[in-house]
Amino acid sequence: MLGKLNSFHKKMASFSVILVRPLFSGNLGSVARAMKNMGLKDLRLVNPQADPAELEARKMAAHAQDVLKRARRFPDLKAAVANFDWVVGTSRRKGKERSNWTTPREFASSSLEFTPRAKVAMVFGPEDSGLLNEDVALCQKMIHIPSHTAFPSLNLAQAVMVTAYELFLAKELGKRAKTSESSSSRPAKVETLEAMYEDLGLLLAEIGFLNQQNPRHLMRLLRHLFNRARTTDKEARIFRGICRQVRWWKFH
Amino acid sequence: MLGKLNSFHKKMASFSVILVRPLFSGNLGSVARAMKNMGLKDLRLVNPQADPAELEARKMAAHAQDVLKRARRFPDLKAAVANFDWVVGTSRRKGKERSNWTTPREFASSSLEFTPRAKVAMVFGPEDSGLLNEDVALCQKMIHIPSHTAFPSLNLAQAVMVTAYELFLAKELGKRAKTSESSSSRPAKVETLEAMYEDLGLLLAEIGFLNQQNPRHLMRLLRHLFNRARTTDKEARIFRGICRQVRWWKFH
Repeated sequence: MLGKLNSFHKKMASFSVILVRPLFSGNLGSVARAMKNMGLKDLRLVNPQADPAELEARKMAAHAQDVLKRARRFPDLKAAVANFDWVVGTSRRKGKERSNWTTPREFASSSLEFTPRAKVAMVFGPEDSGLLNEDVALCQKMIHIPSHTAFPSLNLAQAVMVTAYELFLAKELGKRAKTSESSSSRPAKVETLEAMYEDLGLLLAEIGFLNQQNPRHLMRLLRHLFNRARTTDKEARIFRGICRQVRWWKFH
Repeated sequence: MLGKLNSFHKKMASFSVILVRPLFSGNLGSVARAMKNMGLKDLRLVNPQADPAELEARKMAAHAQDVLKRARRFPDLKAAVANFDWVVGTSRRKGKERSNWTTPREFASSSLEFTPRAKVAMVFGPEDSGLLNEDVALCQKMIHIPSHTAFPSLNLAQAVMVTAYELFLAKELGKRAKTSESSSSRPAKVETLEAMYEDLGLLLAEIGFLNQQNPRHLMRLLRHLFNRARTTDKEARIFRGICRQVRWWKFH
């Protein structure tokens, strides 16, 4: 149990929050608090206009004074992200390259695939202008937080919270899935599924159920269904067994 | 398109945020901003110690001054929730009755089932103590926001943001699902599925694939698989067709 908890914390520790030129010290405190709420510790400040030692910062940080105190300063974003494997920016404006945009939930979900040793930086721009193009150029991916079109601009600490919350939840759900996923509920391997599709396809052709003009159409439908269900090994074996038994029944 | 947008806004308007005895005016502003970011408008204050007219509140509200200004005051929570169909509280402490607890994501997801006319109140307690037992007694359900055990206490406005964000996302996803859910991707009705299970059960019995000691075991496994896939009408018809065709093939 302790081992599991430790490895969880180690994984969380590889995510850092970088604030680029933050303006208001209250936000520094709120960001520190949001981070600690969601198990993040490493805060980096790039050329900050706000001071983490100010009363307003310390007040808003509540019991996250440690995060605030340990916040490291960097002269520019390039220096701050020097040792990271992944640099993810946030912005409320979607740029031209749509393919590079993701949501906090998608980002959190995909981050489960990172190796535990990967160091990931989540970069947030200043309160007034957001990240500049030269900052965005240093990011491999951009997060856009879904919000109402009438007033899409989130407070800096709120943006950090939403992103960190999604990350925390994805890790929690990932942990739970790993614990509860016994061999009987784990999705079947590709080769097992392919063997099942072959058996099904041969039988359906034999009984005359496949459309001769487009035999693949029905198989595509079936694949879609079995994929959605995340079919297990046991289930694939059951369907293969049914195919065998149908043949035995016909010829006996 | 405009019709769709209007009905979406109408649905969102049926969710209200109620702050019970809030202490800090900055939080009032931050809550108003978070609400407007996520398409919520109706803010209610129960016996507030903080003043929405104070500079700190107006500063933190940014472009959500309208939400702040229209905030209504009530002498107690009972009066504030008088006209609501659903009253949902939030707390970081889980009480004894676990069945009554939910997460923001589960709450948001279940709220899609509410009728569009349902009025839902989301109740948040004061910054220092949270909701009292007498407040909780007025709530039909309690939301617990997942957070790190080392420092689980979220800032009031952050708690409102996480809840409102989940609500906004669920509505957005619900809208998208409705738009993309043509009759071909909608899950089949119960009677359609039951007819399919009957056909499958009869055939599997006939070919001798069901365990005589426990014929229901295999059917439970199949139901589990088809449920997970949210099997559509078309797919259920395909499986019924396969059952028919297998019989035809045997006897011709």
